[in-house]
Amino acid sequence: MAFLKYNNKNIYYEVHGEGTPLVILNGIMMSHGSWQVFLPELCKENKVILLDFLDQGKSDKMEESYKQDIQVEVLKAVIDELKLDKINLFGISYGGEVALQFALKYESYLNKLILFNTTSCTNPWLQDIGRGWINAAEDRNKEAFYNVTIPIIYSPGFYTKNIDWMNRRKDLLYKVFNEEFLTAMIRLIGSAEGYDVRNDIHNIKVNTLIVSSEYDFVTPVNEQEYIKEKIENSTYILIKDSGHASMYERPIEFLTILKGYLSIENYMKIV
Amino acid sequence: MAFLKYNNKNIYYEVHGEGTPLVILNGIMMSHGSWQVFLPELCKENKVILLDFLDQGKSDKMEESYKQDIQVEVLKAVIDELKLDKINLFGISYGGEVALQFALKYESYLNKLILFNTTSCTNPWLQDIGRGWINAAEDRNKEAFYNVTIPIIYSPGFYTKNIDWMNRRKDLLYKVFNEEFLTAMIRLIGSAEGYDVRNDIHNIKVNTLIVSSEYDFVTPVNEQEYIKEKIENSTYILIKDSGHASMYERPIEFLTILKGYLSIENYMKIV
Amino acid sequence: MAFLKYNNKNIYYEVHGEGTPLVILNGIMMSHGSWQVFLPELCKENKVILLDFLDQGKSDKMEESYKQDIQVEVLKAVIDELKLDKINLFGISYGGEVALQFALKYESYLNKLILFNTTSCTNPWLQDIGRGWINAAEDRNKEAFYNVTIPIIYSPGFYTKNIDWMNRRKDLLYKVFNEEFLTAMIRLIGSAEGYDVRNDIHNIKVNTLIVSSEYDFVTPVNEQEYIKEKIENSTYILIKDSGHASMYERPIEFLTILKGYLSIENYMKIV
Amino acid sequence: MAFLKYNNKNIYYEVHGEGTPLVILNGIMMSHGSWQVFLPELCKENKVILLDFLDQGKSDKMEESYKQDIQVEVLKAVIDELKLDKINLFGISYGGEVALQFALKYESYLNKLILFNTTSCTNPWLQDIGRGWINAAEDRNKEAFYNVTIPIIYSPGFYTKNIDWMNRRKDLLYKVFNEEFLTAMIRLIGSAEGYDVRNDIHNIKVNTLIVSSEYDFVTPVNEQEYIKEKIENSTYILIKDSGHASMYERPIEFLTILKGYLSIENYMKIV
Repeated sequence: MAFLKYNNKNIYYEVHGEGTPLVILNGIMMSHGSWQVFLPELCKENKVILLDFLDQGKSDKMEESYKQDIQVEVLKAVIDELKLDKINLFGISYGGEVALQFALKYESYLNKLILFNTTSCTNPWLQDIGRGWINAAEDRNKEAFYNVTIPIIYSPGFYTKNIDWMNRRKDLLYKVFNEEFLTAMIRLIGSAEGYDVRNDIHNIKVNTLIVSSEYDFVTPVNEQEYIKEKIENSTYILIKDSGHASMYERPIEFLTILKGYLSIENYMKIV
Repeated sequence: MAFLKYNNKNIYYEVHGEGTPLVILNGIMMSHGSWQVFLPELCKENKVILLDFLDQGKSDKMEESYKQDIQVEVLKAVIDELKLDKINLFGISYGGEVALQFALKYESYLNKLILFNTTSCTNPWLQDIGRGWINAAEDRNKEAFYNVTIPIIYSPGFYTKNIDWMNRRKDLLYKVFNEEFLTAMIRLIGSAEGYDVRNDIHNIKVNTLIVSSEYDFVTPVNEQEYIKEKIENSTYILIKDSGHASMYERPIEFLTILKGYLSIENYMKIV
Repeated sequence: MAFLKYNNKNIYYEVHGEGTPLVILNGIMMSHGSWQVFLPELCKENKVILLDFLDQGKSDKMEESYKQDIQVEVLKAVIDELKLDKINLFGISYGGEVALQFALKYESYLNKLILFNTTSCTNPWLQDIGRGWINAAEDRNKEAFYNVTIPIIYSPGFYTKNIDWMNRRKDLLYKVFNEEFLTAMIRLIGSAEGYDVRNDIHNIKVNTLIVSSEYDFVTPVNEQEYIKEKIENSTYILIKDSGHASMYERPIEFLTILKGYLSIENYMKIV
Repeated sequence: MAFLKYNNKNIYYEVHGEGTPLVILNGIMMSHGSWQVFLPELCKENKVILLDFLDQGKSDKMEESYKQDIQVEVLKAVIDELKLDKINLFGISYGGEVALQFALKYESYLNKLILFNTTSCTNPWLQDIGRGWINAAEDRNKEAFYNVTIPIIYSPGFYTKNIDWMNRRKDLLYKVFNEEFLTAMIRLIGSAEGYDVRNDIHNIKVNTLIVSSEYDFVTPVNEQEYIKEKIENSTYILIKDSGHASMYERPIEFLTILKGYLSIENYMKIV
């Protein structure tokens, strides 16, 4: 519940609980508030640090376009402000991309790296999916923005089964999708264009957890399989019957895997 | 290369080759022209009938909204005009949906039913995906319409590997995405809303081929598994490493499965 | 490190650590000793109870054939001896089968049920696989017994990559596969014939974790999917690129999922 | 219905129908007779050549152990005897292994290569599975030989659903599993040990069809994915819900894919 200054921009962060630091990096349309329901479980053994990236949540908006490396420095600033060391760094989707770039630049800060629903590259397909999101935001069309960004991040089965919840969520999101939010989204989405760490991630040596969702139609399973192949000390698990937004579709599976990996101290080998 | 009248609307159709009739039903953004490259192979043993649905290709445009049952009658009119009997009916995506509804109403006309990348229901998820397409069409935004409709129907791997071809295709499509086309698309997409044959398809007794693509993010694999469970005399095959537009991504796999199934006369059983 | 008497048979058990009781049920060819390497991680927050079933490890051998329900009572006897209440019950393979039957008979003893690589029925296929194991044991052919029981429980990739470890393991197992062991195995394998809880498990209401391995060729993924569908309060996770013996092939994935699920106190729902 | 001499051994072969030659290579426990039910469909457009490998069916038995390269020469002898040219070569399992080795040595004889349920290497896992089969054959234990060889080549679902058919088949096979058959099987299984074409198959340029079964527990899906990656002009299709013996479990899917691929003349590309 505090702000720090990074390049004259306010960065919002929260600290909850005590224990080994667990820094949580949001997906693109999320904010610190998205994690409230998970805090009771996560705070039991960890000091949980939530933060909003630039153009996200309560952090300041930007005026110009930028790339994800600025978010890497935002994260670095939060870590330095809190004098954290050997953090466990969790990222999902956009947050996972920032986490991978942070690991490549500041690996010594890390104890464990945890990547849910993450890709190593904004390939042309994902870029054009993102541009469709930008187009809808540029048209200031809330309904269009909802329809192009939200269904695709859920599995069809979950979305259909929970259509009432989705519709209530739609009502909430329509209130969020104002001018300021949509222009921020345009910059955030654009900041992931050009992202590509495929040639570098074999250098990551920190213990890394990689999690896929079976019906992830934004960063499909083969993207995480690629990362798993490249990072030597990696642990890889699949959540069945879930879309991209794994923490909402499968919260217990999500917490089980995340908390379990955090609890491991001894990466013993059988073979 | 001819037209027939259905309800005062011109319906365009073509007949190629000789043999058992094979009627081909297009996906929503396709037309008779989409099948040119496949004709040499398909005409060798079949009389191939291509047709454009209402609001598609060279067939007349509609003025009002409608449901897919009108396309079922369009198909019936073509069959009657050509005095076809015991046809092999192929449909992909939107065409598969019309094919299933035709089978339920006019099963006696069918010899074999062939469904690629087809769902049995426009569930809320698919409906909202479709509404995103409608939103982009309503905004008359060609770039938005491309970005929300095209990437999602290809697998990320294919789209990325063939980005030059995709970009040339984009240029062609931008010329196609004029006012008339986009208003027709709004009606076509809307005509699939409310589609639901889940409670009926167990009545289909005709021999049926069902084909899925591994990375079909529009009508995912579990949709075809559902249809396979319900239709007793069904044959089910998966094309690996392909998106929704299976005929473009995997043309030889597509032809192999389609031609092979057409060639079967004796559905002998081992057990 | 103690024995209790059950029906005049000695049952061996061990207790390690402090905390919520976690009772571990072995797979058919395992014993308490199989878990040594996992104890440091598991004991940190749990009182871990290891036990050998009848005809397993240090527990007494039987003379006559029996069914798995006797192992359910063995488990009950251990729980009563230790005056345990609200245990977390873990089972893998044969142990998972006993765990399911225990849950159906004594659900009030359970806090959480954890099933790795478990089936709900010894179907005719699995029965005949098991009879092949019995045949090799009856022939007192160590090499045959190894070749029919061991490769199938590993994924081909793991077995091939770690062939030196497998071969050292083979040497160890040849020493284990003596007359007494093989006759015990015949009874153990036979005790799983007729196992079928498919019609009952929908009654299980305790929170349940179900884990599959992608290349499980003994109890394939669809077996666990079936259990997941039937048990309402279930959490389901897949370990990619692993065979049936998930704890040996993927020890960190195994511990991550097991420890994570044990740590959950609040099964909060998002939807 | 004829024999030819190869190295003083009688090789049995049959020729059925007229058209492009399709030579069929059996799996290890099959013979020419296994294909009777498929002949009506396959003979319509093809001259089908069935043959029994050495130690198989009506071909002569061997006395000494050998490697699969002798079967490659047996196939060459049949092709020369019949003065065939530009054949379509089909192999399943053991037959697929021989087909791959034939393609590497005599590619100019081939028009198309068709591989169902085939691996490119007898890795240590598959070798030990095979040794379990040899152990049972050496013990002259019919029941053991059935239980270790038959269930594993079917999917659990098929085997369970068709248990009556399986049991009738068991009765038939018990009559087949005599001394002569079992000693031939020991040599046949042994002839696949050491098989490894992984470093060579990238040289195969002939059009190649590769087919996997979802529940193939002998030559799992990733084996065919490997071959597909290596052979440039390959077409790859998956039969869902089938075990290793795809032609028995899914005869219509089997014929659909095989006949369809045989019918392709123009490997046109879209991209």
